[in-house]
Amino acid sequence: MTTTQLIEQIQHKKSFLCIGLDVDLNKIPRHLLTTEDPIFEFNKAIIDATHDLCVSYKPNMAFYEAHGLKGWQSLRKTIDYINERHPEIFTIADAKRGDIGNTSAMYAKAFLEDLNFDSVTVAPYMGKDSVEPFLTFENKHAIMLALTSNEGAFDFQTQQTEGEELYKKVIRTSKTWQNSHRLMYVVGATKAEYFAEIRKIIPKSFLLVPGVGAQGGSLSEVCQYGMNDEVGLLVNSSRGIIYASGESDFAEKAREEALKLQQEMRDIMHLASI
Amino acid sequence: MTTTQLIEQIQHKKSFLCIGLDVDLNKIPRHLLTTEDPIFEFNKAIIDATHDLCVSYKPNMAFYEAHGLKGWQSLRKTIDYINERHPEIFTIADAKRGDIGNTSAMYAKAFLEDLNFDSVTVAPYMGKDSVEPFLTFENKHAIMLALTSNEGAFDFQTQQTEGEELYKKVIRTSKTWQNSHRLMYVVGATKAEYFAEIRKIIPKSFLLVPGVGAQGGSLSEVCQYGMNDEVGLLVNSSRGIIYASGESDFAEKAREEALKLQQEMRDIMHLASI
Repeated sequence: MTTTQLIEQIQHKKSFLCIGLDVDLNKIPRHLLTTEDPIFEFNKAIIDATHDLCVSYKPNMAFYEAHGLKGWQSLRKTIDYINERHPEIFTIADAKRGDIGNTSAMYAKAFLEDLNFDSVTVAPYMGKDSVEPFLTFENKHAIMLALTSNEGAFDFQTQQTEGEELYKKVIRTSKTWQNSHRLMYVVGATKAEYFAEIRKIIPKSFLLVPGVGAQGGSLSEVCQYGMNDEVGLLVNSSRGIIYASGESDFAEKAREEALKLQQEMRDIMHLASI
Repeated sequence: MTTTQLIEQIQHKKSFLCIGLDVDLNKIPRHLLTTEDPIFEFNKAIIDATHDLCVSYKPNMAFYEAHGLKGWQSLRKTIDYINERHPEIFTIADAKRGDIGNTSAMYAKAFLEDLNFDSVTVAPYMGKDSVEPFLTFENKHAIMLALTSNEGAFDFQTQQTEGEELYKKVIRTSKTWQNSHRLMYVVGATKAEYFAEIRKIIPKSFLLVPGVGAQGGSLSEVCQYGMNDEVGLLVNSSRGIIYASGESDFAEKAREEALKLQQEMRDIMHLASI
């Protein structure tokens, strides 16, 4: 999917919501556990109930890998289901990969070509040649960790390096890499005040924003500092939506929570005349 | 496996060789491609031919994930084969994972419990709570990226932060984390002169050293600066061993290459009276 198509979807749906498909068998309704593929059945129900309210789904690979072969099967069925039924949805493989060049190229092929995700999250620590292989696919994107939503973000990301904090150096340096127009960035919602700083470096780039809801971030603050004139944000909510209910009404309740966020987003876009 | 057991193995085998099982279907002998599981057949032959010369095997996850379900099957068969036939071998899931706490915990469970690797490589960018979940398993280890062997290592890892370079801060900070005695570190062989600096901070820790052979690092230089009185190194070679021949004699040639490295290691240990 091109960035232009993503922007069109945001404008069409009046939403920049990304739903994290982090499926935990301990948290899903019990009646699904007797089905052949509980993870896929759960995802299918969530997707059916919410696809008109969000522009993106983000399965976190850890939750699938934790189930080995079965998990990969559920992941494959989930991404195929989204791509077949809802090709307008921007898909994110939340994998946070990064390795030496030939290895990153293998990961890139796995997620962007074989599984056919629109994007994959990557880690910056190994630098240029660990990220560039993810940027060689036309109309595909790599979403690089910049400033994350967890406590440990302050261990290294906000460390002062020569002239600026590490996360800023990471973003600024990445702009010099080949095909950097295919880069998006992870910026945690729990640090709204940082968005203004980041927007000075990358005014146009899309930011994937985890941490709204369960992790405590505020949507309105994120938008105040982080939105650009094409929105430029994908705001993720996982647990707050998919586990709104642990009973048989889980999909309905997930829709209600997604709708609340979508309406808040619609109002924010309206106020900003987008 | 405990660190003590690993040290015993190193002393017993007179080897600190780790063999990287980075299986590329384009590089393995053609006759294997007609078997049901070419990746596993290749690994099995390499393991059968080299297990007495090395103390560790390190499958790189990317090379398995690139084949989706089939790849996971090959990985599972490979790790099970090693654990059943050669429980004295220290196994490393080269995955370079790292995410927020609950997600890292899922990865940790997948690699250290379900697949039953002895260790997994992790990335430090997200800090303490992204790494600590990998350190909660008794007699298991996390091997954290410190200074990698690729060109991009100079993008951020060697950046000056407050008082010291980032890779040093990463190592020093990690020592304050819970169960940090279960941490080992990735330090690339292409930067032998840095080992002395690193040994000032972590004299006793094991270092996993990629980059010898195909990537150009020198074993003797690494040992000169990086070895401690229990060796404290796992030196990895992947392509130089497993692709020594692309013909039907691949396992035999792999053994020859592994033997060369093991003999060099034996001599180095002898000179150092270990």
